[in-house]
Amino acid sequence: MLSRVRSAVAHLVSSGGAPPPRPTSPDLPSAPSAQSAAPPEAPRSPPARAGSGSAAPAKTVEARASFSRPTFLQLSPGGLRRADDHAGRAVQSPPDTGRRLPWSTGYAEVINAGKSRHNEDQACCEVVYVEGRRSVSGAPREPSRGQGLCFYYWGLFDGHAGGGAAEMASKLLHRHIQEQLKDLVEILQDASPPPLCLPSTPGAPGSSDSSHLVGPQSCWSSQKEVTHESLVVGAIENAFQFMDEQMAQERRGHQAEGGCCALVVVYLLGKVYVANAGDSRAIIVRNGEIIPMSQEFTPETERQRLQLLGFLKPELLGSEFTHLEFPRRIQPKELGQRMLYRDQNMTGWAYKKIELEDLRFPLVCGEGKKARVMATIGVTRGLGDHNLKVCSSTLPIKPFLSCFPEVRVYDLTQYEHCPDDVLVLGTDGLWDVTSDCEVAATVDRVLSAYEPNDPSRYTALAQALVLGARGTPRDRGWRLPNNKLGSGDDISVFVIPLGGPGSYS
Amino acid sequence: MLSRVRSAVAHLVSSGGAPPPRPTSPDLPSAPSAQSAAPPEAPRSPPARAGSGSAAPAKTVEARASFSRPTFLQLSPGGLRRADDHAGRAVQSPPDTGRRLPWSTGYAEVINAGKSRHNEDQACCEVVYVEGRRSVSGAPREPSRGQGLCFYYWGLFDGHAGGGAAEMASKLLHRHIQEQLKDLVEILQDASPPPLCLPSTPGAPGSSDSSHLVGPQSCWSSQKEVTHESLVVGAIENAFQFMDEQMAQERRGHQAEGGCCALVVVYLLGKVYVANAGDSRAIIVRNGEIIPMSQEFTPETERQRLQLLGFLKPELLGSEFTHLEFPRRIQPKELGQRMLYRDQNMTGWAYKKIELEDLRFPLVCGEGKKARVMATIGVTRGLGDHNLKVCSSTLPIKPFLSCFPEVRVYDLTQYEHCPDDVLVLGTDGLWDVTSDCEVAATVDRVLSAYEPNDPSRYTALAQALVLGARGTPRDRGWRLPNNKLGSGDDISVFVIPLGGPGSYS
Repeated sequence: MLSRVRSAVAHLVSSGGAPPPRPTSPDLPSAPSAQSAAPPEAPRSPPARAGSGSAAPAKTVEARASFSRPTFLQLSPGGLRRADDHAGRAVQSPPDTGRRLPWSTGYAEVINAGKSRHNEDQACCEVVYVEGRRSVSGAPREPSRGQGLCFYYWGLFDGHAGGGAAEMASKLLHRHIQEQLKDLVEILQDASPPPLCLPSTPGAPGSSDSSHLVGPQSCWSSQKEVTHESLVVGAIENAFQFMDEQMAQERRGHQAEGGCCALVVVYLLGKVYVANAGDSRAIIVRNGEIIPMSQEFTPETERQRLQLLGFLKPELLGSEFTHLEFPRRIQPKELGQRMLYRDQNMTGWAYKKIELEDLRFPLVCGEGKKARVMATIGVTRGLGDHNLKVCSSTLPIKPFLSCFPEVRVYDLTQYEHCPDDVLVLGTDGLWDVTSDCEVAATVDRVLSAYEPNDPSRYTALAQALVLGARGTPRDRGWRLPNNKLGSGDDISVFVIPLGGPGSYS
Repeated sequence: MLSRVRSAVAHLVSSGGAPPPRPTSPDLPSAPSAQSAAPPEAPRSPPARAGSGSAAPAKTVEARASFSRPTFLQLSPGGLRRADDHAGRAVQSPPDTGRRLPWSTGYAEVINAGKSRHNEDQACCEVVYVEGRRSVSGAPREPSRGQGLCFYYWGLFDGHAGGGAAEMASKLLHRHIQEQLKDLVEILQDASPPPLCLPSTPGAPGSSDSSHLVGPQSCWSSQKEVTHESLVVGAIENAFQFMDEQMAQERRGHQAEGGCCALVVVYLLGKVYVANAGDSRAIIVRNGEIIPMSQEFTPETERQRLQLLGFLKPELLGSEFTHLEFPRRIQPKELGQRMLYRDQNMTGWAYKKIELEDLRFPLVCGEGKKARVMATIGVTRGLGDHNLKVCSSTLPIKPFLSCFPEVRVYDLTQYEHCPDDVLVLGTDGLWDVTSDCEVAATVDRVLSAYEPNDPSRYTALAQALVLGARGTPRDRGWRLPNNKLGSGDDISVFVIPLGGPGSYS
């Protein structure tokens, strides 16, 4: 992902009002050191307590150097060196001998071909126990009363401008989700609709009284139905926000500079929640059918949101950028001619007379993998990036980035899944060179070569997907069987069985 | 549509910081008078000239009273009185004896059951000729050189707070589209990609030179591909904007106060463009299959856009409104408790501690047909409404409304259409009580009762759809066969045959 930030800013902002270029990104973290040797999180340990609604509830990562791999890989120092070798690009998976990941989840990863010093992807797979903060009725919780909740959690984090943000998110985002769910432990296990209002202090009565509402003609006479599902979605959304705020607060002390895309799966009470902020992707392959479970957030897919913000808050554009989009760079000699453009309201194109302001650099430019916000970053949602500035400028880019995920919900109970039905998560290193259909074909090919109850089949599938995107070294590059270039990016893949032997247990 | 604006504002804004209510809307137009007797527009008359990119290119409507029906109905004074009768609610269609609408289009309408004094829907169906403004090469146009373009046009306009805006739009919006297309006459008929830049003055060379662009690493090194189709989309989008600006400029002189939803179809060079701003709807029924050709824009579907604007520009909310959404009204005694809420970033719900600001009225409230922006209006896109204020307040609502349509494109040449394939346009009076599937069933039932080459079958279908939504007077109301209430709103329907005897000619 690093190249998404570095890009060729130098050549781009040098005219049209912007200052001259600077060769390197100011946001790269300091040099890496040895892997963190922190033990894996105990899946059912009681969580840290924090105030409801406050911004920094979860435990912080200890300050340390920024290179590590997911603890579930159980890498020795030698293994870590091999995982860090750009020349060999060995595929990494959890050892067959150790404890399997929950649900027999498959995982594989490979480092990039040299675009950044270390693998900037990170991953997390946990079972998290949520103990309620207190009873909904307001009475202090008795230890024996009520059951906590358990959720399964998978996360992929694709870092850019350093691995710090991705690592921090991989250690803490599920703790933020856990924190957000504490208020909901009893509510989610109660079949009745959630209370709209909770008491502020234990002992105060809950309120869902509507006797003071206005008459039936009003648009405001009824109360909206809020589902349990939407509470979980809200909890995940807020967890992303709190994670992002924590990064803002702690970025200097903990080398969590840079940013990361986050793709997260939560399984809770029969439903799978897929939350995506960035350009990773999740698909379900079910009986050969592909069900998209995320969309990518890029300067192209979010063009109108970005342009609207630039239009409403022109101070965010400085004197360097225009919120208008043009199909190519305008040259000063074209002043007064008429150029195609789009503004924040348009999906089509029209001609406008070129004025002096139009010579500024467009807020959104480029296509496909080269699309950029402010000539700098190629993803528009994610965590971190609080220090990210336009190259050689003090203009912050963060206001244009959103930390909020899109959350899609899949009800596992609505369909009888077989062991070949899987949810595949991958960072863009996979999807840049592999289509959904190719993934589905690999799912079919690999899983059919294993017994349905062989728990190693999902790891084998994850490895096959990573290998298929990486390719093999040939003709001065990593190449696919069709001789096209493989992905030179970090590649990380989870394969989550939806009807496998270990699922839901 | 009137009730969408009047609503029960009185009861709503009276606490939480807003001033007391006022019983009637300040935006109702003056009393109506007799129908305009303006002749139908000549379909191929040369359009008025106007400068490119200026805001008011099209002819203005003469100042006059605001009650009229579409000229193609050819209503006599007596017929006009019958069309205006809320008790009889006679269905109106163009006479069988007169000239048929283009493509043998079917049309039917009926007045509301008393919610507003007159039918506030309007309709337009035209064939419009576009003469190029000048040749793309910059040379002065010779009369014999190049061909103009012809487009077919259908528009439905659902007015609120008076019929003035709908009437103005029905007379002028196609002229704005015509104006926007003038620059494109030669470009659209040339198979090569559109020029990205046009000369400002005749004789100056066109430019698509890219020799001065930066190197291949840049996000800005290439030029975007702009399709002919996206130019037509841009032309329609800008026409809506210019129409809206014209209403702003002329609203006092021409009684075009109030506003209207606009649903417009343009057929040009083999493609159907469906542009929708509001809560009307278009569907294609093709071989029994339903293809949605629009989406509705309401406070619920546009909640996040509205909330984002209120968040970024809090001055637009005054001291009366909060951008947060709550599932029911908060009572002052609940201060300090925790209430479910959503902000502009959230699709799920979470709890927050109620603070004083949260007692303000929510920017978006209510559900379904009762959803409102600022407790006032139930649609969020359309034309006009420049004078619309929050009841008993000076707060303008227009900043939250968008005049930009969503445009969907359907390529007629990609499928061999039969005479039973139709595009159905309807104002919300139809869709409030009729599902897409019910419309498709009526299409099948009515069309199969007529010979495929009988051009009156589409009028019969439009009438059947309007009758089916209106119902019959029974039990002190208009009721459907299932005894549910029919629509008391104005109902207007176009049925456009996609493979009928007169299509495309």
